[in-house]
Amino acid sequence: MNGEHSATTDERDEQTTDDTRTQTMTTDRSRLCRTFQTAPAAVPRENTAKYLDSGLSATGFQKPDWLVPDIEDGTAPDMKSEALDNVVDRLPDAEFVGEVWPRVEWSYEDERFRDRGREQIRTLVREVGEFVDGVVVPKVGRLDDVKRAERVVAEAEREYGYAEGSVGLSVIVESARAVSDLREISQWGGESRLHGLVFGPVDYTAELGGRELDGQPPTWDSLLWRLSNEASANGLVALGGPFDRLFGERAGVRFYNGEAYADQVEREAQVGLDGSWSLHPNQTAQANRVHMPSPSELAGDVQRIESFHEAKGDGTGAVVVDGQMVDEATYKNFVNTVETVTVIHEVAPEQTTTLYDEELLDRAFDLDL
Amino acid sequence: MNGEHSATTDERDEQTTDDTRTQTMTTDRSRLCRTFQTAPAAVPRENTAKYLDSGLSATGFQKPDWLVPDIEDGTAPDMKSEALDNVVDRLPDAEFVGEVWPRVEWSYEDERFRDRGREQIRTLVREVGEFVDGVVVPKVGRLDDVKRAERVVAEAEREYGYAEGSVGLSVIVESARAVSDLREISQWGGESRLHGLVFGPVDYTAELGGRELDGQPPTWDSLLWRLSNEASANGLVALGGPFDRLFGERAGVRFYNGEAYADQVEREAQVGLDGSWSLHPNQTAQANRVHMPSPSELAGDVQRIESFHEAKGDGTGAVVVDGQMVDEATYKNFVNTVETVTVIHEVAPEQTTTLYDEELLDRAFDLDL
Amino acid sequence: MNGEHSATTDERDEQTTDDTRTQTMTTDRSRLCRTFQTAPAAVPRENTAKYLDSGLSATGFQKPDWLVPDIEDGTAPDMKSEALDNVVDRLPDAEFVGEVWPRVEWSYEDERFRDRGREQIRTLVREVGEFVDGVVVPKVGRLDDVKRAERVVAEAEREYGYAEGSVGLSVIVESARAVSDLREISQWGGESRLHGLVFGPVDYTAELGGRELDGQPPTWDSLLWRLSNEASANGLVALGGPFDRLFGERAGVRFYNGEAYADQVEREAQVGLDGSWSLHPNQTAQANRVHMPSPSELAGDVQRIESFHEAKGDGTGAVVVDGQMVDEATYKNFVNTVETVTVIHEVAPEQTTTLYDEELLDRAFDLDL
Repeated sequence: MNGEHSATTDERDEQTTDDTRTQTMTTDRSRLCRTFQTAPAAVPRENTAKYLDSGLSATGFQKPDWLVPDIEDGTAPDMKSEALDNVVDRLPDAEFVGEVWPRVEWSYEDERFRDRGREQIRTLVREVGEFVDGVVVPKVGRLDDVKRAERVVAEAEREYGYAEGSVGLSVIVESARAVSDLREISQWGGESRLHGLVFGPVDYTAELGGRELDGQPPTWDSLLWRLSNEASANGLVALGGPFDRLFGERAGVRFYNGEAYADQVEREAQVGLDGSWSLHPNQTAQANRVHMPSPSELAGDVQRIESFHEAKGDGTGAVVVDGQMVDEATYKNFVNTVETVTVIHEVAPEQTTTLYDEELLDRAFDLDL
Repeated sequence: MNGEHSATTDERDEQTTDDTRTQTMTTDRSRLCRTFQTAPAAVPRENTAKYLDSGLSATGFQKPDWLVPDIEDGTAPDMKSEALDNVVDRLPDAEFVGEVWPRVEWSYEDERFRDRGREQIRTLVREVGEFVDGVVVPKVGRLDDVKRAERVVAEAEREYGYAEGSVGLSVIVESARAVSDLREISQWGGESRLHGLVFGPVDYTAELGGRELDGQPPTWDSLLWRLSNEASANGLVALGGPFDRLFGERAGVRFYNGEAYADQVEREAQVGLDGSWSLHPNQTAQANRVHMPSPSELAGDVQRIESFHEAKGDGTGAVVVDGQMVDEATYKNFVNTVETVTVIHEVAPEQTTTLYDEELLDRAFDLDL
Repeated sequence: MNGEHSATTDERDEQTTDDTRTQTMTTDRSRLCRTFQTAPAAVPRENTAKYLDSGLSATGFQKPDWLVPDIEDGTAPDMKSEALDNVVDRLPDAEFVGEVWPRVEWSYEDERFRDRGREQIRTLVREVGEFVDGVVVPKVGRLDDVKRAERVVAEAEREYGYAEGSVGLSVIVESARAVSDLREISQWGGESRLHGLVFGPVDYTAELGGRELDGQPPTWDSLLWRLSNEASANGLVALGGPFDRLFGERAGVRFYNGEAYADQVEREAQVGLDGSWSLHPNQTAQANRVHMPSPSELAGDVQRIESFHEAKGDGTGAVVVDGQMVDEATYKNFVNTVETVTVIHEVAPEQTTTLYDEELLDRAFDLDL
């Protein structure tokens, strides 16, 4: 939620345009997005910014890496303008430490939505450009439509005097056309201001005519794999879609549906998505945890790096740690774990100090990577 | 089974070449194909057209949306010419209300099959061009091969005086090359006479060298997903492959394998395939049912549309129906349900009046969409 | 392990560049690779070539179709040069009948690894070019990087006087970029010296940031399907990745993990991969068996071919064998089975004579295909 992105963007572009540089994964990690929490920017309550305020002031594991003030589907049609006002009003004074990415309106197939989206983007950049990390554009179509959205951001950025690339773009992949062009969009995106690919299962299922039979909606596993692959190939972040069965009920008691959500988040983490969509502080807390190294992962990798350094000091090339042969390639993975923890520690120290031993953190931060 | 397609084709082309028009899904729906029933066009019985006659005179839920007189693999090599004769003989007097799509011979890798296919297509267009909706071409290869098949249809159409686009083309996707080019074939197809993408698992499994281990053939789920996605992205229909274990037997009794087939059809419907392949009137009856809105889906969506109209009349933008916020985007999905039922009612009123209450149908047809 | 490949390569190129020729599957089969067994080319034992020697002298079902002396990740950094020496020393006198494909170092993202790989390839071609069938290049990136590796092989081949195409190339698909470009790499590969696409799950999972949760690493099923499809579409072989949990332990007893490995190999065979990766003679024995026709498959197909020939002699076009209608298309699949067995019999007669009855083999080899 500040103006450092142009440097980050440049860094990333350099790395992804040259196959021979150090792996882009490291860069993915430095752009932390374990949680993509949408908050309706206006709701019919006394304080219409209730959910926005709540997201901006969240603490501990409930603080999302990305807060997404939602001016699109989460906000009723007759409250769109109040939603935009709320965002403009709240961002300057918020003390939120993560990134802020408002979601605007858009549609590859309907110009009216694009016109509204353009106005929303222009207002956001003009009024609070220095307080947003980028905008989230939903319902994009083929590559041409994504480029069209990018031009809107670029124009607003230029018109209101921001450095090129300082306002990022993430898109929601929820049309058959966007999926058909996923490779092309991602490859173009690796050299543009595009940062995130977010899956939108509800619209996607409707567009394909998918059906929920026996209560099981399609899970689109192959699509998640491709999203993860294309994001990794091009230095982008890939994020899962929302899980909207927030609450279950049995024998008269209503309860937070924590098992089912964690299952979804774990499936997403397994195929390498960087983060998950959250609709609720509890979901944020769970997704933040699943998408960070466990204490034993961190402890193991710190120890392997220490042993590797020691062995290299001895002049030996190969090191065996806990029965695993460590070379430059595997070493890189251990480093990734520590770098991820380092980045999380910067934006959410209350999470790292809660999850890991102080001594372990000290050893991790003392490493010469 | 008549000459109205050129208009339909033009309509579709206009919609799919401009990203900004109304979603193509509506168009998919207007080209109903819940069931793709192949009938061997000649069999070694006294009446060699036995299955063809039976398909053409089917009624109720056993009437397929598309009847596919099969001159290819379903007909023995020495009966091909009689098969063609049967189709030419039976179509003019049939009172079949669905679409008719004969399957001819073809092969991307064998010119002899293509030569026979060309002659079969020319004969069909010359003799019964006004009674077929298109031809089904199997074993296509890369995009170039699909274009080659398209040129054969275009030439026959021109030579025998039919309007451009009046004879459609559907292809069976059953080679590794067609799957490799699926995106390119579909994108080209969205602007051509191509209407349907049909999966052919038997040849496909043989070509990839897939094995049936422990009695389980590969299900190719990822391929079905891509078929569904590319069809939706380009305004085509996507159809599943045949299920040939028609009958089971246990403890001495042989019975129709209805559970296993319905399971396959439900899996296909779940990922958004428009229809399923049928080899038997029972399969047709089941697939027709799975691929149409259930009575409660129709009732729910009719009510949501009614409430939405009422609320808009009141000047409110957002409407909450049964706890769901209804906006223009979700509204579109409700409309799709009603439009699908409307199209089914046109070609198979005995199915709609059997499945839905008369009162519900009246409410659906009274809506001003 | 000899110099016949240029002919094989030419044959294949001719077939794959013309869609209209006989199916490439037959060609896949003639390039047998049921097992891709890596053997560290140097280990810190008294005989540093212990595993290499063991692989080169394996017999029976433990003899791999491809032996892969591993100079890359299987060999410690400080033993690379001894590993290369061992390969150069052992190959000329080995009496191994399968193919030999050393794995060298490479990395799309690190020039140092590519420099070492180039030197290793040049040394191998110069010293033992006539004894290797090709080289295995790991960690390739996009198509450009694969072409870069191909040029290294082509230059060495030319410089040391080998016929063009006599030294093959197989690549390990283990980066997001290679997967993103899989269609392009494979299509280019179908007309080049590229022979094999081998999946590398460990690096791939690390690159995507995949996680092993609840002890289950991701299985990347969709990727295996695409690998199989692209290999089939372009006349290449597709191979699964290593299974490294070689041994299990329970109640104090350590045992070879044969069930889990066979499960993986069967899953790979089911989707049409040509072979599996082996790290151990037991794995080789299992994968060789799973990837060859079972005795009943061979017996059935031999009988169907015999009946088909008999019926054609009688002048009938269609033949029904065991209730299945046999035409030219299905006939081709039966022929594939017999051809596969014929090729296996050439390189591993002890396997075919162990698995099949002598009488059945005689009938198979007597067929006029």
